[in-house]
Amino acid sequence: MNPSVPKISTFEVGEENTGFAQFFSGKSWLAPLTNNKDLNVPMFNVTFEPGCRNNWHSHSGGQILIAVGGVGYYQERGKKAVCMKPGDVVEIAAGKEHWHGAVPDSWFSHIAIQCNPQTNTNTWLEPVSNHDYTEALQ
Amino acid sequence: MNPSVPKISTFEVGEENTGFAQFFSGKSWLAPLTNNKDLNVPMFNVTFEPGCRNNWHSHSGGQILIAVGGVGYYQERGKKAVCMKPGDVVEIAAGKEHWHGAVPDSWFSHIAIQCNPQTNTNTWLEPVSNHDYTEALQ
Repeated sequence: MNPSVPKISTFEVGEENTGFAQFFSGKSWLAPLTNNKDLNVPMFNVTFEPGCRNNWHSHSGGQILIAVGGVGYYQERGKKAVCMKPGDVVEIAAGKEHWHGAVPDSWFSHIAIQCNPQTNTNTWLEPVSNHDYTEALQ
Repeated sequence: MNPSVPKISTFEVGEENTGFAQFFSGKSWLAPLTNNKDLNVPMFNVTFEPGCRNNWHSHSGGQILIAVGGVGYYQERGKKAVCMKPGDVVEIAAGKEHWHGAVPDSWFSHIAIQCNPQTNTNTWLEPVSNHDYTEALQ
């Protein structure tokens, strides 16, 4: 258990996500949930502190998000942000620019699945501006 | 909402699983959670009534189970059964014979991910005997 993270789901929280911190506004935590590379479904639980979100980015193989705790947002470039609560699943097509993260007043956890890991690469872009983040709340 | 299934998770329950009923001892429900075939991660929520389990079977591409509600079991042939509760993840290697289902006194829901769907085939075997199921409880 990580004493600095409240219990918002039954999934492991893991360690503070320092490896990707440069691509996140705020603190996040990362727990790998799978090990067997032959299954080709790398899966992590990602936990965001309130207000934390990742930069705009895309995955050449696509991604699936499964909300498991708290409340968050997913936004695809050019579309309205979608509120995510436990039980919600978002499918992100290959190459689509997007961001995800917590709402300002709640922690958020989602499982993230890296799709097509044999060839997938991630492209990290600019941070989500405070203006765009605030607009997502409307 | 399915009125005959109690709410044990935040995920969709879907329809009664009549298509695979011949491979299940007891009633189950199936909800597809993904649509985009290019992501190569077909994902379903499977809900088992108390006592319900599937036959021994294997997947040539492997499978991942994510427990999301109630209490269930996973057993690999020749090994001790493992109790599954929300937050538990089981990785099943390609070709491993196994079964999964609910404990006798609780409903159970898990997300099931079909791995390597481009080439995966399922092989269905004999039902789990009452003797083996009872032994799993020990």
